[in-house]
Amino acid sequence: MITTNALSPKEQREVFRNNLDTKSTSGMCDGFVQANLVILPKEYAFDFLLFAHRNPKPCALVDVMEAGVVKPNIADADIRTDLQKYNIYKDGKFVEEVNDITSYWRDDFVTFLIGCSFTFERALNEAGIEMLHQKMDKTVSMYVTNIECDPAGVFHGPTVVSMRPVRKELLVKSVEVTAKYPHTHGTPLHIGDPSVIGITDITKPDFGDFVPYDEDKYEPVFWACGVTPQAVALKSKPSIMISHVPGHMFISDQKEIL
Amino acid sequence: MITTNALSPKEQREVFRNNLDTKSTSGMCDGFVQANLVILPKEYAFDFLLFAHRNPKPCALVDVMEAGVVKPNIADADIRTDLQKYNIYKDGKFVEEVNDITSYWRDDFVTFLIGCSFTFERALNEAGIEMLHQKMDKTVSMYVTNIECDPAGVFHGPTVVSMRPVRKELLVKSVEVTAKYPHTHGTPLHIGDPSVIGITDITKPDFGDFVPYDEDKYEPVFWACGVTPQAVALKSKPSIMISHVPGHMFISDQKEIL
Repeated sequence: MITTNALSPKEQREVFRNNLDTKSTSGMCDGFVQANLVILPKEYAFDFLLFAHRNPKPCALVDVMEAGVVKPNIADADIRTDLQKYNIYKDGKFVEEVNDITSYWRDDFVTFLIGCSFTFERALNEAGIEMLHQKMDKTVSMYVTNIECDPAGVFHGPTVVSMRPVRKELLVKSVEVTAKYPHTHGTPLHIGDPSVIGITDITKPDFGDFVPYDEDKYEPVFWACGVTPQAVALKSKPSIMISHVPGHMFISDQKEIL
Repeated sequence: MITTNALSPKEQREVFRNNLDTKSTSGMCDGFVQANLVILPKEYAFDFLLFAHRNPKPCALVDVMEAGVVKPNIADADIRTDLQKYNIYKDGKFVEEVNDITSYWRDDFVTFLIGCSFTFERALNEAGIEMLHQKMDKTVSMYVTNIECDPAGVFHGPTVVSMRPVRKELLVKSVEVTAKYPHTHGTPLHIGDPSVIGITDITKPDFGDFVPYDEDKYEPVFWACGVTPQAVALKSKPSIMISHVPGHMFISDQKEIL
């Protein structure tokens, strides 16, 4: 495996294009915006764009590419080859994981790039709010909540949140810091008691790993998560949908503004 | 003609539904959001929504209604009857002005309600920035600029701005006040010398009336204008498009937040 922290986004994407790397993009190309990927046929595109417009916290758009366009506006890249790996779904069901979607590509495919939490995690770290899951080398804990998204056309479903334990004396700061990043989920949806948002067992996340914390010192803080639009899209069983493999984001040429 | 300032939005819309009033909605139902109207067939809806997403200053969405839906989310109303008057365009050309679009209505019509400047004009007035055009009982001056909108699909074209003369000592305040209203065009696009944004003769607006001012005391301030999306949409010659008649907005039940 190639060590990649020193690579530019363009170099890093070339590594992916040649299928020479397989680890999570977390920590890669520090300082550049990374994004979740959702590709849908044009017949679903208006409803999905409206869903994103109505639900900006879980689904903050960093780029939208018109039907058939393979070059993002935010990177000198080819969306068909320049991610590490992709998930293919048909009729709402997972079909296969691939390194390249050129053979699947169609002229009516519309690409949505959705803000991910890497940017605000960097900002939180810099503000002295330690990311426990990074320290423990775990995936952030994610939960399906009882907070319904605002539906749009065929798309509806609950908000998925990511949880980060925050030291009690830093709770206000965690809101202040993430308020500056409306394009990566913005302020938290909830602080504290998980049952308020329908989470019955904090030790059993629906996605990712549970990150244990000392309840005397920490409170769980919940932010809207970029997994939401994927979960919602799949629920409507589109004939075909393509996404990134969780943790393996699209790396753009756009600088994070911290 | 009925004097309507004291009516609630619902009562005012009923007056419109019964075609009992014909004057501009400016100043009506003070404190409630008014909106520009654009109705397009669904085949154009994704491109138009993407255009709005990419150009939030001229095209700030206050509501979007899925295909066939006649009740806005922001009002207990029927979009087909509850405006005073509508313009019908076919293939980019004006066809007729009507009081009711029920006979034109189709199940594939998508409705966009776009922020208008009435809200921020109230805020400017309250901040001590007098609206000269209101004092003179004129329509605000509007100009086509050399500032191209960010194109989306079939939609592209220049930004239309509205101009308000602002006393020189209040220029910074005019930016500060309108910064609070991203849903009604936000901060100005330009202050001062009109030629910088491609306006060759300030006394000859492309739409509305010229509002004369004392150049020693005032500077012209230019904000993105809700006429932009209509102008851009017409340029692409959609098979059919319906809009409000300029100055005769949709009055919602949503309170302005000043």
